[in-house]
Amino acid sequence: VSATDRGLAYGDGVFRTFIAHHGVAQHWSMQYAKLAADCTRLGITAPAASTLEAEIRQVCTSEPECVVKIVVTSAEAERGYRRGGGVPTRIIMTAAVPKHAAEYRQSGVRVRTCHLRLAHQPALAGIKHLNRLENVLARAEWDDAQIAEGILLDADEHAIGGTMTNLFVVTQNRLATPHLDRCGVAGVTRDRIIAAATRNDIACEVRAVTMKELRRADELFLVNSVVGIWPVQSLDGNPMPVGPVTKRLQRCLDEETDAQVA
Amino acid sequence: VSATDRGLAYGDGVFRTFIAHHGVAQHWSMQYAKLAADCTRLGITAPAASTLEAEIRQVCTSEPECVVKIVVTSAEAERGYRRGGGVPTRIIMTAAVPKHAAEYRQSGVRVRTCHLRLAHQPALAGIKHLNRLENVLARAEWDDAQIAEGILLDADEHAIGGTMTNLFVVTQNRLATPHLDRCGVAGVTRDRIIAAATRNDIACEVRAVTMKELRRADELFLVNSVVGIWPVQSLDGNPMPVGPVTKRLQRCLDEETDAQVA
Repeated sequence: VSATDRGLAYGDGVFRTFIAHHGVAQHWSMQYAKLAADCTRLGITAPAASTLEAEIRQVCTSEPECVVKIVVTSAEAERGYRRGGGVPTRIIMTAAVPKHAAEYRQSGVRVRTCHLRLAHQPALAGIKHLNRLENVLARAEWDDAQIAEGILLDADEHAIGGTMTNLFVVTQNRLATPHLDRCGVAGVTRDRIIAAATRNDIACEVRAVTMKELRRADELFLVNSVVGIWPVQSLDGNPMPVGPVTKRLQRCLDEETDAQVA
Repeated sequence: VSATDRGLAYGDGVFRTFIAHHGVAQHWSMQYAKLAADCTRLGITAPAASTLEAEIRQVCTSEPECVVKIVVTSAEAERGYRRGGGVPTRIIMTAAVPKHAAEYRQSGVRVRTCHLRLAHQPALAGIKHLNRLENVLARAEWDDAQIAEGILLDADEHAIGGTMTNLFVVTQNRLATPHLDRCGVAGVTRDRIIAAATRNDIACEVRAVTMKELRRADELFLVNSVVGIWPVQSLDGNPMPVGPVTKRLQRCLDEETDAQVA
């Protein structure tokens, strides 16, 4: 990547991370739709879906299953914040599927509450953009390998999500997930959970979620497109059950993915 | 630069931009102090001053005067927000000194107020980090080459600075500049102006500044380490005088720089 790329200079770009099987991205139409929508919000011309599909196939040739990360930046450019209208840069990378993922899906993860508070920036909220210093600083708050994820609150002390996951709360068989119109990243798996809940007659609200609700919840879980659904087994040292709604939604998502792969 | 560099992936790094004469950075001790302090706040090990000095000399060999940009990122790394403790990446780039700078210093610049509001993030405020999407989006609000800079307000409607400059207001021969403890970038030239004002018995306050004050000010000026002091000749189409305090401070800074170069 060029040292003058605006992705490096300013974080002027977006990304998505997901699993690919034999060169085919899981839930690609949703991933691409999010990537393109994020580009549009930032004023970047999204690459064509077909171009990215071909490039994903190419980087995944030898791997039956891998993590793919797509980065799209606004362009290489001259110095200065003004965009010059160059061609967006595409970067497609692969990585191994994390080893812990399967175990965590079953027994759940230990999580902590982060000290850092997410800033409210409606112009960037929901977008999976490259300005991720808040996530980096939050992740740097702990070094205990037993803690898999940290919960981020915003400036109003509302829960927004994990450093790399979206968050769901189950209370009396009803789901809630934080709205992301002032901060946070709106992931594909979050949308899939909301859709799966609706299909399965589980009420699901998108709204402000307090820490008090998290502590009193019947179940908590964290989601992203690489790990799927991680039940929370403890929050700040307080044990939580891996409950029936979480397990049911895990099965729904697995069936959906299996159907797509098959 | 590696596609896995954390500077690209997350904007996990800092930068400084300044003028160098024959390979020697202007006001280097201040530039380095800021760079090192910003690294420390982000938890990045700052490169040694001597290493950077040698590299600046090297990239500037053939140029009597040029713009130098230093970028320091936390490291190349594996996927994920967690830092792995790799060696920070150093990037040193040069560019030509912008042509408009001298003319604008004399006759002043036309500026507009941006629509985007800066988010409050005390953990990042003041740092010249690589998460600059707010600046990019603000700069994308206008395309009129006659407008040299845009004023950014924060979520409380206080003026913070330009997209690439710090801001000073002159009212009844007193200076004020926005405090930057919730957003904005604290530049070296801002510090130099505050020091020069003190030396010249000009009162200078660091505090909240409203748009109303800007509109009613006797003089306004914008500063950074590449352009020096730009007087504002119009704000949102309303003419403003290029006044005596601005001119006096321009002379102070020029004398200081000349003394250093000589």
